[in-house]
Amino acid sequence: MAIIDLNSDVGESFGRWTLGDDAAMFESVSSANVACGFHAGDPSVIRSTCEKAAKAGVVIGAHVGYRDLAGFGRRFMDIDPTELADDVVYQIGALQALAATTGARVQYVKPHGGLYNAIVKHTAQARAVVDAVKSVDPNLPILGLPGSEVLRLAEEAGLRGVSEAFADRAYNPDGTLVSRSQPGAVLHDPAEVAQHVLRMATEQTVKTIDGSILNIRAESICVHGDSPGAVAMATAVKSALGDAGVTVGSFL
Amino acid sequence: MAIIDLNSDVGESFGRWTLGDDAAMFESVSSANVACGFHAGDPSVIRSTCEKAAKAGVVIGAHVGYRDLAGFGRRFMDIDPTELADDVVYQIGALQALAATTGARVQYVKPHGGLYNAIVKHTAQARAVVDAVKSVDPNLPILGLPGSEVLRLAEEAGLRGVSEAFADRAYNPDGTLVSRSQPGAVLHDPAEVAQHVLRMATEQTVKTIDGSILNIRAESICVHGDSPGAVAMATAVKSALGDAGVTVGSFL
Amino acid sequence: MAIIDLNSDVGESFGRWTLGDDAAMFESVSSANVACGFHAGDPSVIRSTCEKAAKAGVVIGAHVGYRDLAGFGRRFMDIDPTELADDVVYQIGALQALAATTGARVQYVKPHGGLYNAIVKHTAQARAVVDAVKSVDPNLPILGLPGSEVLRLAEEAGLRGVSEAFADRAYNPDGTLVSRSQPGAVLHDPAEVAQHVLRMATEQTVKTIDGSILNIRAESICVHGDSPGAVAMATAVKSALGDAGVTVGSFL
Amino acid sequence: MAIIDLNSDVGESFGRWTLGDDAAMFESVSSANVACGFHAGDPSVIRSTCEKAAKAGVVIGAHVGYRDLAGFGRRFMDIDPTELADDVVYQIGALQALAATTGARVQYVKPHGGLYNAIVKHTAQARAVVDAVKSVDPNLPILGLPGSEVLRLAEEAGLRGVSEAFADRAYNPDGTLVSRSQPGAVLHDPAEVAQHVLRMATEQTVKTIDGSILNIRAESICVHGDSPGAVAMATAVKSALGDAGVTVGSFL
Repeated sequence: MAIIDLNSDVGESFGRWTLGDDAAMFESVSSANVACGFHAGDPSVIRSTCEKAAKAGVVIGAHVGYRDLAGFGRRFMDIDPTELADDVVYQIGALQALAATTGARVQYVKPHGGLYNAIVKHTAQARAVVDAVKSVDPNLPILGLPGSEVLRLAEEAGLRGVSEAFADRAYNPDGTLVSRSQPGAVLHDPAEVAQHVLRMATEQTVKTIDGSILNIRAESICVHGDSPGAVAMATAVKSALGDAGVTVGSFL
Repeated sequence: MAIIDLNSDVGESFGRWTLGDDAAMFESVSSANVACGFHAGDPSVIRSTCEKAAKAGVVIGAHVGYRDLAGFGRRFMDIDPTELADDVVYQIGALQALAATTGARVQYVKPHGGLYNAIVKHTAQARAVVDAVKSVDPNLPILGLPGSEVLRLAEEAGLRGVSEAFADRAYNPDGTLVSRSQPGAVLHDPAEVAQHVLRMATEQTVKTIDGSILNIRAESICVHGDSPGAVAMATAVKSALGDAGVTVGSFL
Repeated sequence: MAIIDLNSDVGESFGRWTLGDDAAMFESVSSANVACGFHAGDPSVIRSTCEKAAKAGVVIGAHVGYRDLAGFGRRFMDIDPTELADDVVYQIGALQALAATTGARVQYVKPHGGLYNAIVKHTAQARAVVDAVKSVDPNLPILGLPGSEVLRLAEEAGLRGVSEAFADRAYNPDGTLVSRSQPGAVLHDPAEVAQHVLRMATEQTVKTIDGSILNIRAESICVHGDSPGAVAMATAVKSALGDAGVTVGSFL
Repeated sequence: MAIIDLNSDVGESFGRWTLGDDAAMFESVSSANVACGFHAGDPSVIRSTCEKAAKAGVVIGAHVGYRDLAGFGRRFMDIDPTELADDVVYQIGALQALAATTGARVQYVKPHGGLYNAIVKHTAQARAVVDAVKSVDPNLPILGLPGSEVLRLAEEAGLRGVSEAFADRAYNPDGTLVSRSQPGAVLHDPAEVAQHVLRMATEQTVKTIDGSILNIRAESICVHGDSPGAVAMATAVKSALGDAGVTVGSFL
């Protein structure tokens, strides 16, 4: 029976501010990218998110980001690679300790936002992330975009790189994501998203924005958790997968 | 042969700002209270401090504080105990991961500044610190003021509480510290400080501000590292101890 | 015709995090307590809030708070009065500049959260706030609790102190607010809140939690903006006031 | 008699951390680039710096930067131009209010660090800075690098752009600064720096790193204030200028 991992960004609340419904998302996804405090997630939010993930049997990953609360970690920062590596270690360690108090543990790393986008091509920052993860635990896989520098360097360093696709994003014929500034870049219809994911999971293909069919190999599919219809979409995706005989489960 | 622990606050630089000469202090002290990022210490400073401590054979402790960079963690904050406990776990975990990348590990916890002072009497915050440390590792001792709530609760919870005295602070006849607002509260003469420490280490007494002799039991003595003459004072203390046949060594 | 001021905390979003529906609140209130960046409100949120307030004809006040994003400024901080005064000047100035770019200006100051509560009794912090406001502009009124240190010192310093009452809080017979830890402390029924406010506005009395009637003199009534039913409640209050012939308008 | 402006970055301390000796620098320079809290400078530091500048008769400018305390504002951040403009207005306003409490006022703007470097070529960020300054006060000049986008756009918008040169930096034959990664990029000898400045001030030329003579028109010369020998260098520069009959004075 086919299995596919669904991952989602969680633990993105901070202090008085609430974002997303993590407990509801945990009914549909198998991997939780938990914010580590640099772009979102204060320590109590992190611990509480780990408790919910542990209770729901969802695997916990460290969603490491730039130190930029005001920008939610979405803005590229030209940070020195050595400092970036230390920032990544710091975040993973903080999450590890909080996860451990809930009986859970950190089992993978997924860079967030601006950092995620940067290390598709920015070799020095990609290497910093890989070095950091390896220095903490070489058994931690790294999630990233297929063909990215970070996955190439992870594998070069003996780490497992895990390719991910996006449930609600349109693809160009060359496999890159359609820029958010273009019409049709983000899919909003749950049924359409479910079909998008189903094709990725069962046929390892994606129908691109021009209608052509592209091979894509994703071990995990990212379902966004912070939009208004996020829970409904995640539910629709899981349901469509189930109807097709595909089980949602961790990539581990 | 008598042994006494000397501890000092280190890793208190942040970004562009340098504070203290940690490497020089490590020639005199046996325990390093490493800032964990909430009141001081960015991840690169923390890692670098751990490297220096490990190289010098100095034991690393987590110097956990309130989340208050602007106030250097010195201002009391009426933070909810549950949130405080999570903040403490977060900080210890972050330090653990960075220390591990240097081959070292965190072997004790010492609260910093405003938190240190609060948990002398603030039971709820003291319990939060104890709970946090215990949840991370019940084998981690906690340094605190003799007679403080935090040491009482630590021992009640089965943790080791370690009493500390202050090398450069005058004591009242009742064993409390002379308030910094009073004249003579802080000792500035290295020779005088050395005699103060020597008496603590060899006779377990302190000469109070009115000249009386008070029994004091300290397993560790705090030597400040961030004042202009800090290194000279630490050197004088270690030298005086050595002359008297007392070795500087960890309380572990 | 009677006029009463309704004030509400706004501009409390920050970066990715949205809180409250300021534009909707501006249809009901006459005074906008705009967060200034220390407890909430990034510069773009502040500017955008000022634009909406200006467009709606709502008077802008500086909602100054402790530097504590993680705690939303709700936690008491034992900050040095001189530093507090500088923090308050900084926040007012920042808001003034952003308001000016929208054609509006800052016309009063209301301390927020933990600071608001502290300066009911904490003379040194209350004086710091008063000194700060006076140093910026002695014509700026300060909103506070009737009988508070901050209002007493404001008037002593020649500033106008403006007393406020709370639309959705129950009162003790001695005029203090029922603690949030007690049952019935917060009123949730819009009709009940509307009656509460109507009595304050028209009779200058409040029915206390034990049913007795207490004289209360409030020049402004605070309507909370960040709860789920906030907009509905503000609408109900304004409507009830209108039905009774009371106009909502600034205290200026 | 010839007059040249010397400007220096000041107010760069933060909380417990001290950087530079501003009072000493004010004996030599005529313009003070005061940090505004985003990359350095807490409100009390800012106010105290304004007091010292006012007392010394030094003109105050707003040294606006990216929101990045950990990186001291030196790292490029790919921030949205609208948000950047709001950040700049916020910082100028905060400084204006604090300066006003000391009887001084903000008379120019100089972007800091990573932002300064970015807007040499980054048109969108340069325009954001210009728009922000213009929205606060179109009479505020902006300091920048000769030939930079920010100066071009400032003048296009009707603002005064002020060209500056660097006292301790070597120049390439094309007028750009020798990269800090190259040998000889930074001049350390006070006598050499003094000659460098003297040539700029009296002949409007610079001897480049290859020995050629280049025309340079600078209305202000930046003297760094945060290096160990900063005060000595500033003193040497002012003295050499005085010996040559050149007075240090504001560009206003």
